[in-house]
Amino acid sequence: MSRPRNDNFLRALFKEPVERTPIWLMRQAGRYLPEYCETRQRAGDFLSLCRSPDLACEVTLQPLERYDLDAAILFSDILTIPDAMGLGLCFEAGEGPRFARPLRDEAAIRALTVPDPDRLEYVFASVRAIRKALAGRVPLIGFAGSPYTLACYMVEGGGSRDFRHVKTMLYARPDLLHHILSITAESVVAYLNAQIENGAQAVMIFDTWGGSLSNAAYAEFSLAYMQGILERLHKTWEGEKIPAILFTKGGNAWLEEIAQSGCTGVGLDWCIDIGEARRRVGHLVALQGNLDPNVLFAPPGVIVREARKVLAAFGPGDTGHVFNLGHGISQFTPPEHVHALVETVHGLRH
Amino acid sequence: MSRPRNDNFLRALFKEPVERTPIWLMRQAGRYLPEYCETRQRAGDFLSLCRSPDLACEVTLQPLERYDLDAAILFSDILTIPDAMGLGLCFEAGEGPRFARPLRDEAAIRALTVPDPDRLEYVFASVRAIRKALAGRVPLIGFAGSPYTLACYMVEGGGSRDFRHVKTMLYARPDLLHHILSITAESVVAYLNAQIENGAQAVMIFDTWGGSLSNAAYAEFSLAYMQGILERLHKTWEGEKIPAILFTKGGNAWLEEIAQSGCTGVGLDWCIDIGEARRRVGHLVALQGNLDPNVLFAPPGVIVREARKVLAAFGPGDTGHVFNLGHGISQFTPPEHVHALVETVHGLRH
Repeated sequence: MSRPRNDNFLRALFKEPVERTPIWLMRQAGRYLPEYCETRQRAGDFLSLCRSPDLACEVTLQPLERYDLDAAILFSDILTIPDAMGLGLCFEAGEGPRFARPLRDEAAIRALTVPDPDRLEYVFASVRAIRKALAGRVPLIGFAGSPYTLACYMVEGGGSRDFRHVKTMLYARPDLLHHILSITAESVVAYLNAQIENGAQAVMIFDTWGGSLSNAAYAEFSLAYMQGILERLHKTWEGEKIPAILFTKGGNAWLEEIAQSGCTGVGLDWCIDIGEARRRVGHLVALQGNLDPNVLFAPPGVIVREARKVLAAFGPGDTGHVFNLGHGISQFTPPEHVHALVETVHGLRH
Repeated sequence: MSRPRNDNFLRALFKEPVERTPIWLMRQAGRYLPEYCETRQRAGDFLSLCRSPDLACEVTLQPLERYDLDAAILFSDILTIPDAMGLGLCFEAGEGPRFARPLRDEAAIRALTVPDPDRLEYVFASVRAIRKALAGRVPLIGFAGSPYTLACYMVEGGGSRDFRHVKTMLYARPDLLHHILSITAESVVAYLNAQIENGAQAVMIFDTWGGSLSNAAYAEFSLAYMQGILERLHKTWEGEKIPAILFTKGGNAWLEEIAQSGCTGVGLDWCIDIGEARRRVGHLVALQGNLDPNVLFAPPGVIVREARKVLAAFGPGDTGHVFNLGHGISQFTPPEHVHALVETVHGLRH
């Protein structure tokens, strides 16, 4: 194995010199692309698409055919782990994810175990298929949800506006929540290391709901577990260093602590000036982000202007910046608008 | 007119010595109280309750009968202004607010005007009724939504997860959004000044959605308008100083700028350590907050412990702290749990 032909993404994460600022987009294989909707329809539903290595590979590559992106990301879902634990995942149309058996009583929580890797083999098969299909073009990113984010879904049984059940557990029975988080963290370590062993060249941990925690609770219930995971991830595989990106949405208050967690790069949402973030973390980590995804609804001229603002705020001509949106690309994004963004980041539009 | 008998809330905002740390709760007159649900049922629906000065007065006083709170807040809704502008507010059961005529085209936006004060007279009548019913017991807080938060509802036509329409306008037609914000800011000034003239002894601006903006956009589209409002609010009325609290949910990144806006106090959500917030703003403003509302789901012993953490973080025995939750109290809160909180803040439980 060796580095991909376009390794600007890996170089930027390791703060090595780059030919151009690399860019990829969270949720780049998604519903804004008509070809994705077509494949998804062929699959039947979202979960069948995730579970088919062939189709997951197909949609992973679709955005790379359209745009000159600098990384691919495994097409999958963060809830594969709790599903493999036996919580019974389903996606109701327009409703988001639901678990048939949310974790609400002590017996169920104490019975929780790290899932059998065989139950996640379809994910590792997707990683192998994508890596092969990429043929060394750009690096492949693997990913997992953070333990706290997964626990939110596992306890609430789905999405939530107030996280009432998991927060009640956090305050009233922290021992139970810590048990869930420990088992989940161990599962994430095994899951991400298996993704690396099967071909992922970088990994990212999505802490979507850590930002809903209080200051003290974030350190204890989210960051500590992510730090524990980072310590146990493969640092190199087949001679290549494996970078890890940590992204806590709404976590700007804790940037310094996140940067000291042992990650290679920190993902930023759009609510912080990336130049200020850079001053706060110093040279400890690379930064990934942070354009407001809503900018992509505006005409190309505005997209160019706003993307250049992010580039200028980071500091032009310097390395350590992976351009991205501050959140997943919206399903309502006009696909042709993405060209303006990619070309601007690559220095081809002014 | 003179200060209320219990003026600890006003004293804390002006950083004067207090007898005890004052506490009130955002949304303290709400669905967690069975007596509120009873009155609301009698009113028919939420909007009828808001529009009846007698019933609005009744529910405003209900939490003060149960708990030893240090302030009352006008029972109303932030959407009274756009409703009075003619956008056609309704609340669908379980759906949240909806506008029949959201602002989506330039002609409708250009036609927007500051509402006739007569259309908001029911609010001012509520203020007078509540002030009379309070009979000098505790201060009455008036309030309004921030221009940007109101614009979110006016453009989206209701709540939103991604604020796609208003953000598209922000990036693609900032001139139109600035026009909406100017008219709305002027309306908020007239509305809050009329509340003060009718008896409100403090005012609060709720910037519920400012935190969804990027760093640069927050300054330009939310904070600048709130600052303009603060400059034009009555600073004193009938010989008494009128404090103004500014609360941007998710605005912790911008605390220093918010503290310099001209407000008397800054509301904090639960995602920042209040001691750190205090160090950042210095002696410029008082702080209001910041317990995670989910703490109230835990048993009283935990509530006491967590409330004491907030008190200790601010600095015990010092003034300039109005205790509150970091967000409105949840409808699922057991009412008896609130006693433990109020008594802890007042130093009666350890």
